[in-house]
Amino acid sequence: MTQPATAKIPFGGDYNPEQWPQEVWDQDYRLFDAAAVDTVTLGVFDWALIQPAPDVYDFTLLDRIVERAVAEGRQICMATATGAHPAWLARAHPEVTRVDFEGRRHRFGQRHNSCPSSPVFRRLSAELARRVARRYAGQPAVIAWHVGNEYGGACYCELCAAGFRQWLRERYGSLEALNTAWYTTFWAHTFTDWDQIEPPSALTEHWRGPDHTAFQGITLDYRRFMSEAMLANFTAEKAAIRESSPDVPVTTNFMGMYQPIDYHRWAPHLDFASWDNYPPDDTSQVRMALTHDLMRGLKDGQPFWVMEQTPSTTASRDVNPLKRPGLMRLWSWQAVAHGADALLFFQMRASRGACEKYHGAVIGHGGRADTRVFREVAEVGAELERLGGAVLGARTPARVALLFDWDSWWAVEMTDGLSRLVRYQQVVSAYYRALWDVGVDVDVVPVTKDLEGYDVVVAPLLHMLKGDVAARLEAVTARGGSVVTTFLSGRVDEDDNAFLMDVPGPLGRLAGVRVDEWDARGPEVVNPVQLRDGDDEIEVASQLFFEIVIPDTAETIGTYGADFYAGTPAVTRNTFGAGHAWYIGAGLEQAGVSWVMRRVLARHDIELRYPAVRDLETAVRVTPDGSRVLFLLNHRAEAVEVTADRSGIDLLTGLRVVVGDPVEIAARGVMLLREED
Amino acid sequence: MTQPATAKIPFGGDYNPEQWPQEVWDQDYRLFDAAAVDTVTLGVFDWALIQPAPDVYDFTLLDRIVERAVAEGRQICMATATGAHPAWLARAHPEVTRVDFEGRRHRFGQRHNSCPSSPVFRRLSAELARRVARRYAGQPAVIAWHVGNEYGGACYCELCAAGFRQWLRERYGSLEALNTAWYTTFWAHTFTDWDQIEPPSALTEHWRGPDHTAFQGITLDYRRFMSEAMLANFTAEKAAIRESSPDVPVTTNFMGMYQPIDYHRWAPHLDFASWDNYPPDDTSQVRMALTHDLMRGLKDGQPFWVMEQTPSTTASRDVNPLKRPGLMRLWSWQAVAHGADALLFFQMRASRGACEKYHGAVIGHGGRADTRVFREVAEVGAELERLGGAVLGARTPARVALLFDWDSWWAVEMTDGLSRLVRYQQVVSAYYRALWDVGVDVDVVPVTKDLEGYDVVVAPLLHMLKGDVAARLEAVTARGGSVVTTFLSGRVDEDDNAFLMDVPGPLGRLAGVRVDEWDARGPEVVNPVQLRDGDDEIEVASQLFFEIVIPDTAETIGTYGADFYAGTPAVTRNTFGAGHAWYIGAGLEQAGVSWVMRRVLARHDIELRYPAVRDLETAVRVTPDGSRVLFLLNHRAEAVEVTADRSGIDLLTGLRVVVGDPVEIAARGVMLLREED
Amino acid sequence: MTQPATAKIPFGGDYNPEQWPQEVWDQDYRLFDAAAVDTVTLGVFDWALIQPAPDVYDFTLLDRIVERAVAEGRQICMATATGAHPAWLARAHPEVTRVDFEGRRHRFGQRHNSCPSSPVFRRLSAELARRVARRYAGQPAVIAWHVGNEYGGACYCELCAAGFRQWLRERYGSLEALNTAWYTTFWAHTFTDWDQIEPPSALTEHWRGPDHTAFQGITLDYRRFMSEAMLANFTAEKAAIRESSPDVPVTTNFMGMYQPIDYHRWAPHLDFASWDNYPPDDTSQVRMALTHDLMRGLKDGQPFWVMEQTPSTTASRDVNPLKRPGLMRLWSWQAVAHGADALLFFQMRASRGACEKYHGAVIGHGGRADTRVFREVAEVGAELERLGGAVLGARTPARVALLFDWDSWWAVEMTDGLSRLVRYQQVVSAYYRALWDVGVDVDVVPVTKDLEGYDVVVAPLLHMLKGDVAARLEAVTARGGSVVTTFLSGRVDEDDNAFLMDVPGPLGRLAGVRVDEWDARGPEVVNPVQLRDGDDEIEVASQLFFEIVIPDTAETIGTYGADFYAGTPAVTRNTFGAGHAWYIGAGLEQAGVSWVMRRVLARHDIELRYPAVRDLETAVRVTPDGSRVLFLLNHRAEAVEVTADRSGIDLLTGLRVVVGDPVEIAARGVMLLREED
Repeated sequence: MTQPATAKIPFGGDYNPEQWPQEVWDQDYRLFDAAAVDTVTLGVFDWALIQPAPDVYDFTLLDRIVERAVAEGRQICMATATGAHPAWLARAHPEVTRVDFEGRRHRFGQRHNSCPSSPVFRRLSAELARRVARRYAGQPAVIAWHVGNEYGGACYCELCAAGFRQWLRERYGSLEALNTAWYTTFWAHTFTDWDQIEPPSALTEHWRGPDHTAFQGITLDYRRFMSEAMLANFTAEKAAIRESSPDVPVTTNFMGMYQPIDYHRWAPHLDFASWDNYPPDDTSQVRMALTHDLMRGLKDGQPFWVMEQTPSTTASRDVNPLKRPGLMRLWSWQAVAHGADALLFFQMRASRGACEKYHGAVIGHGGRADTRVFREVAEVGAELERLGGAVLGARTPARVALLFDWDSWWAVEMTDGLSRLVRYQQVVSAYYRALWDVGVDVDVVPVTKDLEGYDVVVAPLLHMLKGDVAARLEAVTARGGSVVTTFLSGRVDEDDNAFLMDVPGPLGRLAGVRVDEWDARGPEVVNPVQLRDGDDEIEVASQLFFEIVIPDTAETIGTYGADFYAGTPAVTRNTFGAGHAWYIGAGLEQAGVSWVMRRVLARHDIELRYPAVRDLETAVRVTPDGSRVLFLLNHRAEAVEVTADRSGIDLLTGLRVVVGDPVEIAARGVMLLREED
Repeated sequence: MTQPATAKIPFGGDYNPEQWPQEVWDQDYRLFDAAAVDTVTLGVFDWALIQPAPDVYDFTLLDRIVERAVAEGRQICMATATGAHPAWLARAHPEVTRVDFEGRRHRFGQRHNSCPSSPVFRRLSAELARRVARRYAGQPAVIAWHVGNEYGGACYCELCAAGFRQWLRERYGSLEALNTAWYTTFWAHTFTDWDQIEPPSALTEHWRGPDHTAFQGITLDYRRFMSEAMLANFTAEKAAIRESSPDVPVTTNFMGMYQPIDYHRWAPHLDFASWDNYPPDDTSQVRMALTHDLMRGLKDGQPFWVMEQTPSTTASRDVNPLKRPGLMRLWSWQAVAHGADALLFFQMRASRGACEKYHGAVIGHGGRADTRVFREVAEVGAELERLGGAVLGARTPARVALLFDWDSWWAVEMTDGLSRLVRYQQVVSAYYRALWDVGVDVDVVPVTKDLEGYDVVVAPLLHMLKGDVAARLEAVTARGGSVVTTFLSGRVDEDDNAFLMDVPGPLGRLAGVRVDEWDARGPEVVNPVQLRDGDDEIEVASQLFFEIVIPDTAETIGTYGADFYAGTPAVTRNTFGAGHAWYIGAGLEQAGVSWVMRRVLARHDIELRYPAVRDLETAVRVTPDGSRVLFLLNHRAEAVEVTADRSGIDLLTGLRVVVGDPVEIAARGVMLLREED
Repeated sequence: MTQPATAKIPFGGDYNPEQWPQEVWDQDYRLFDAAAVDTVTLGVFDWALIQPAPDVYDFTLLDRIVERAVAEGRQICMATATGAHPAWLARAHPEVTRVDFEGRRHRFGQRHNSCPSSPVFRRLSAELARRVARRYAGQPAVIAWHVGNEYGGACYCELCAAGFRQWLRERYGSLEALNTAWYTTFWAHTFTDWDQIEPPSALTEHWRGPDHTAFQGITLDYRRFMSEAMLANFTAEKAAIRESSPDVPVTTNFMGMYQPIDYHRWAPHLDFASWDNYPPDDTSQVRMALTHDLMRGLKDGQPFWVMEQTPSTTASRDVNPLKRPGLMRLWSWQAVAHGADALLFFQMRASRGACEKYHGAVIGHGGRADTRVFREVAEVGAELERLGGAVLGARTPARVALLFDWDSWWAVEMTDGLSRLVRYQQVVSAYYRALWDVGVDVDVVPVTKDLEGYDVVVAPLLHMLKGDVAARLEAVTARGGSVVTTFLSGRVDEDDNAFLMDVPGPLGRLAGVRVDEWDARGPEVVNPVQLRDGDDEIEVASQLFFEIVIPDTAETIGTYGADFYAGTPAVTRNTFGAGHAWYIGAGLEQAGVSWVMRRVLARHDIELRYPAVRDLETAVRVTPDGSRVLFLLNHRAEAVEVTADRSGIDLLTGLRVVVGDPVEIAARGVMLLREED
């Protein structure tokens, strides 16, 4: 099953009429009409409403809400209402709440507050999903099921401890295997009974928080277990839905690059991916692009939904700036450019009370249509209507893959002895940005992904090598492709035990180097690296991590300029089979990473789109009927003029562009060029 | 009942002879004589001394202490000894200690450590007060009762939870009303039984501490409840005192702008206000002035006591600098200028051990009179003797009121989605400083205060509008007065629910504007604001919070200079009735606030005193017999010369000043000019 | 008993073959041969291995490990395996784990995790030591017993509470004496039953962590108790060892300037001192020198062992830089120069998993000999072989003593009202550095040390005066010596109660001054101090703490240049008997401290060695046969040339040096000159 079939890109968002009297609903739908809102997400936090007591299910109000939406001709993304449990449940079953990392049993409050291992929670949440689905499965307006909400966090209670032990039994079979995997001979940690194993927390293996653990093995496994325990909550709800609704797609809203949950392990269980896009600031275009591509990669390129974005401000940060004029529109189209087939907001109307009352909303407390925010929303609504179904289901034809791996992320950031300053997202983003800057489409994929179709595979910080990934990377190069990897790659196996060989372990043959030692330094230490490939030469800075690389078969491309390893290689390239393997041993600044990636691309006939135009993003989607739509997104606050390198028609304006023509793209402007020959 | 009737300003402070052998007492009183100390506060921490076991009350030593003070002719401020509970009580009744915000039951230690809801604590503390009062009520030297000590903090135990639920029943009557007030439909928080309600803490609704809550409603109510629970401890002690002492005034020492306790709700229950003045640094003159005025406003202008100040250093900070020479004297007179009718120190003699042994003391460990500190204390003592009763009971004739509101303070700093960087005290202080700088007396009053008598009412960050305050502000303007309010005002009702209307809610009619949206930014973003009123023009910076203001009937006074809202109004003025309502939509720097306030004052015939002389503070008190005493306080480290604008006699030196004369006020010097025609 | 008798300086370190298969052992010993490794520390964390269940002791594998070491001709430092308890123990006896400062009972995890008061832990750890000793006592290769590992931390459980109360009963005899010592009249803390006393923690007397306490007395005593409770663990193991091994010396590895444990109180119970040297950064030479001298001072000058150092990187810091080339060798020789008779590494081979897998190791994951690190280790190994026994047992002939006092350290950093920015180690280091810079050997000794033999005694921050130390310092001066002390000295007695006299208390007679008051300021405040002694004059900065000093018999040497105490003394010198007592009232910068110390030394005929050559360290050791060996250590990254002031032979190269010759010492180079006439 894939994403919901719709006639156009669904537009709308989270809508909570249960908070309002009937006359407000009337106003809402008038405003929805004005903004071309065709889709509402209903019931995300309705557990207490639907089930006000253990034995009472009451759909009176939700029925009215659904009926009204249907009467108004809207599509419904129907939630299972399990985003937060009700107060009576926490009171009746205290074990439904979580025990936190500090060992404290929580009581009723907040949301994302349910222990994933609690049988009571699992039973009641599935039952709620079952009843919601049964009630509305016959309603054709329901085009998708929305399970839970932003799964995340962790629990450390006794139930989770028991679940963890059971999970370990299944994973390892024997304590001997577990002791080997966790390397428990160290510090006398050998376990002689499953019951001796405690969740790794501030009271057991950790200090200074979740990333500082005495034993990486147990902590990694606890994250895997916790990710799966929550997944079991999701799949239980999904199964309950399926009892009455065999055909409507099911999703849950992800949070992009969210460390605690390994979305690659979740993705097969969703019918389609969706995510909530709350970028940290106004200059997050690259981060968002990467995240969209990661979400698209979850289901092998299948389009995803933007389940939430704010029309104006967030509410949870210390400072919550406005999205400047035009940004919401630009970022909405960016999502579509990267594979989004729906654009939904949180929230349709600002709630009166509690912690999200100042979160951006399509309709504010004053209920006006003449606000800047509403006008911009309505503008996008109108454009989506004009566009219709033109890009629905379209795919991205990327020839470059970037490997993204939650295990490596977890391991490299929780490991003692390397550098706490090297951050996975930052390094990955630098390599992604190098490609984004020159207008190359990228698939961000798991390490298990078939790499056959790619000319270039980039694997920054591929810290943990699992399965046959090293062999598959070698195969890329063998057949003439290029592989790029970096410092801190090839260090550990799936259990986070070091390979008993030279660094970079099983990648060493491919890279043609060995790393003798590595020097971690504070941000104040900069080592210049001289990069040279033929006549192409540049000096860039490097920081934080410096590997001392001894080439075997590789040639030296970059050389350290300072410290006792001045003159030794920082960047190498190895010819392996018909292709090249690059090894970046130092924390190069962006200019260095970009130089390397341009050299890599140069070997392949991959088109660079407007590589010299700063912050002009491009993306291509190929529709089911084979049309290519080129998205041009100008992230600058001023207009930019380029020479068209394609002929086509702008799907938003109908403007025809001929190759070689000068084309102006407005400040924060967008074009969707359906290419013509 | 009012403040104690005395012949002169009481001078002295906290005195703990129970820590010392008799020969030290002899030395103490010789030194008290030398410093003209006439008042001692006794017994604040004597619980363990007076009641060493559950069934034993032993006044032997305290009797001797009191007798000696009486024999030495001193006045006594007699404490009820409940500042900290004894170890035996915590051991016998563990529920007497508090459970903290993190959910941890404390055990015996520190002070301010009693659960306010504990029946045992309430019974025993009242009984102790009863017995202390009974024993010393007949003693004429006792001029005031001092209950507890610096009430504050909070408890989250089961007893408090039960008390909270009971308090909520009384407040709301029904769960339906409570659910509406707290907006619990959001996130499925609907309560169906009172017992489901938990104190809002790190284990329930909060994250990142007491100011980050998922539900503002419950957190606000818990603060209100906790403030009242402690008040109930106070009133229980006071009632016990009244059984034997019907006429001696009762107080407790407040802590100025102390966020956790709403002193406006406490004030009616005290016979007179008193507070402990520990300014954060040497440049706190404006903060102290504001706080004195706040304390004076607690009881409608009635004089208050300075119950504690340090003669030299504090002890609790990371760095505890000396009060520079002359500062203690200057600040003592500043207190009197703003309405203090007593000047007491903590502490008369430095204790030998524990955490306040290095806290400043009139008498140090060496027991000397020839220290700088002792000399300065004795100097002030001598001056107070010279002054006699000249300003006792005098009132401040202010025509400007500044609204100070604990609820708004709580709400604006705990609310998500606005700005965590906007701080209530900081904004209020900027408006106060604008008045202080130009020598205008100000009453700092609660929002319930009758505003009839004021020409100008300043209401910065009037975030929460309770009762009829909007109407009363309109009335001020209607009759020709001026009202000034700012960004983030008029947002929520008493339950912290947003008004369902344009911002600034019920203040919109008065302000003549609506706020379309607001932009919060980090401190690095500065937006210049051009202010103009006739020919008076200035450009100032604004920071942190920028409201986008759409004038209705208001005229634009200030205009943003940058960002997408450049050219739109930042400051407006609306003619409403016979007066003006100003709306300051941006976080103006001090120069901007001061410009606005000067324009506001210009419409009224309010005298500005030495507005051009920096850091020369003035204040007027009018004595019961109608004399006006003008205080001149030079906060600069060098002398300042001004031209007298009043004739009068300096009560400290007898110097006669004639209007037009040049008058020099020494560095950190003071004049108390009884005005003459 | 003293340190182990060996033929040369033992070289090797922590070795964990239990983590590896047999073939790795073979490789290890080949590499040990190549590096001249003659000593291995075995079994530090082998509890779970040796005792896999309550009733099972199994030495099979450890026997093989020992046998192999013996067969390979290595010396063994044999651990008692109690560095961490096994999982089964924590599960069976939860009270074996600790309760932390926050009151949280920990569960199994990490290391340093055993409650020192637990009878089960004490019984089982002693039993383990007994069995290990019994098994290997007959093995002549075992040259030392290594008990536990890096004792430290603290526990706050009920067992510790009970132990603390018992310890207090013994210390004070009566509650009255305890109440007096702790000054409990303050804040009604009078204890009327021993059971009322709670360990001082975040739940009782503390706020903002272990250094912020309402009562210094109880916190000081808890640290003393905790230090002794852990010592009791050590002595129990030692006694168990002695049952079968009467003659082999016993130690445990200290951590240098480690605040929680008072090593002076432990030292008499060790046969020899040893410590783990992990300097914070590459410029720690002075800190390390001071720490080596402190360790040498623990046992009255007896040589100590370096039990651990890293050959390359640490693993526990956020950033773990490499030891630059040559540093490991230089620092190894520095240790020997200051009295080390052994040089051991952690770790011989890098573990595959858990949190120290990236900790520096002699042998890395690749098992290579051709790494930089291995080469440098082998180089030092070869030098040690060449040196043989030449400096074993040698003593340092110091004429300057520096007093180091854990009680003063604890007290001055936990006391309210002074300055949280004044740090004991920092001030002590500044005075030590002044001596180090000019090449003067220093004994760092406890305050109880007999001071007869010293010409100069330096006592920075001698905050607490215990026993007869004031009298002994007076005796130093009386007989012509010099005493130097500083601000914040002479403040409190052993119970941390202030002396009831002028500051600096019992030191006042010696110093010839009284301190009227003191001013603490932030680091932004600098007060220039003019120092003058005859024609020798200099102006230096002072910061953080400024005492206002009134000289009695002392002469003024340094004068404040700013603030209201400008012109008053900051540094004084008092002639007392035949000698001088210096009092440094301000936080002088290093240049000022160095100036003072040079003036002090000038009165005595103490040789300054290369005082003008920056970062050329010197040290002398006198061997049992009376030879003097002068160590020259060049801490600079470039060579330095000096003129020899001694004739002698370099023990490392055989080079003969004649007085007056130019001698070049290489960058990070070392000479060991056996002096000749």
